[in-house]
Amino acid sequence: MQTLIIVGHPQPKDSETQEFLKTAAGFLKQVTWHELAGIQQFDPIAERKLLLQNQRIILQFPLYWYYAPAILKKWLDDVLPESSQFKLAQKQLGLVVSFSHALNEFKLGGRVGYSLSELLTPFAALAKHFEMQLLPIFPIERFAYLNQRQRQKLLLNYQQFLELPQPQTFADQEKWFLNKLSALIKQTNNAELQQKLKLIAEQITDNQDQLAELTKLVHDFREDDSLNGK
Amino acid sequence: MQTLIIVGHPQPKDSETQEFLKTAAGFLKQVTWHELAGIQQFDPIAERKLLLQNQRIILQFPLYWYYAPAILKKWLDDVLPESSQFKLAQKQLGLVVSFSHALNEFKLGGRVGYSLSELLTPFAALAKHFEMQLLPIFPIERFAYLNQRQRQKLLLNYQQFLELPQPQTFADQEKWFLNKLSALIKQTNNAELQQKLKLIAEQITDNQDQLAELTKLVHDFREDDSLNGK
Repeated sequence: MQTLIIVGHPQPKDSETQEFLKTAAGFLKQVTWHELAGIQQFDPIAERKLLLQNQRIILQFPLYWYYAPAILKKWLDDVLPESSQFKLAQKQLGLVVSFSHALNEFKLGGRVGYSLSELLTPFAALAKHFEMQLLPIFPIERFAYLNQRQRQKLLLNYQQFLELPQPQTFADQEKWFLNKLSALIKQTNNAELQQKLKLIAEQITDNQDQLAELTKLVHDFREDDSLNGK
Repeated sequence: MQTLIIVGHPQPKDSETQEFLKTAAGFLKQVTWHELAGIQQFDPIAERKLLLQNQRIILQFPLYWYYAPAILKKWLDDVLPESSQFKLAQKQLGLVVSFSHALNEFKLGGRVGYSLSELLTPFAALAKHFEMQLLPIFPIERFAYLNQRQRQKLLLNYQQFLELPQPQTFADQEKWFLNKLSALIKQTNNAELQQKLKLIAEQITDNQDQLAELTKLVHDFREDDSLNGK
């Protein structure tokens, strides 16, 4: 599946968050990184072609005054035609939204007072208009405060958001992770590291087998119950 | 009360709606019409000064992809500071929003699928942030299809939205209308027209008196009821 990331930050080079996401996306082959900053005039024909070539469209932006920055709004205004000839139906629309508030301030009585879902309603209406499947919002709160471990987790979640089928399943996530790991094992020249990574991969595979057995067991129990009319 | 209209249309001169509203606002003395189109770079200092000088701030724009046009978003991004030093508390925020859909398409199951209130939530959050009083949305649907009589009604409603205290009362509206009428009577040189306008003014005043009597009567009845413990 081809994924297009429309980066609606006015100065992505100055944004630690966007630079981090760019690095994360750079590892993925079927992902196109498309920064709007620096484009003087959007070419609607070229932009629409890009949209049509991709199956998953990501609008990625920091929240400015509870909506996307002007540059992304300009792109929407200039590029998307009202005409029903232009079809994006069945494509997926994802929103990667970063902000300096804590996520728990986006609620009734919270500092912002409105949920992210409420504030981003214009994008839900957009998805509805084009009959696109809206993916769950991917929020990034207070990136500057994340520690190394939290950033690693964000990197993996973000890559999965870009690549994995939606809705995501735990099995898909695990399979995806094993694939990344085996690629890494092939790439590395350090024999000791390679050995360690192999052990991790084996451990995950063992866990997967155990999980599959447990899942089957639960399924069997349920079937017994339903046969007994419980 | 001083009212500022921020016109967030990218080409107001080409918009029949904006030209109409401009004419309507032009009759009012305490209203400043401020078009963003054509300003290459917003001067935050000057724009903020303008905001501070006015008590009622109107953001006026056509709905583009379920939000304001990019030019208004740019103004918000460039002009409004995050700093809590900049205070708009107690001022009023009004939204004059025009669109080509019918108003009844903005609802669950309607063509748009979301209400205007849902779509404009980012502005509610903005008003909350600055502790401004958000006025009821002033929607203008399908201006091009309005007949002469509907346009006259729109003109009066719009002028009242700009000038009258909020929330509006029927008595205020009527008083406002009589004031406009008496100014018109003084201005006109056509004796026959003057006579006709005077008759209309008398008629309204008579109606007002009758209404006042009726209101008093209802009030008295209610008092009797409450004395009787009903």
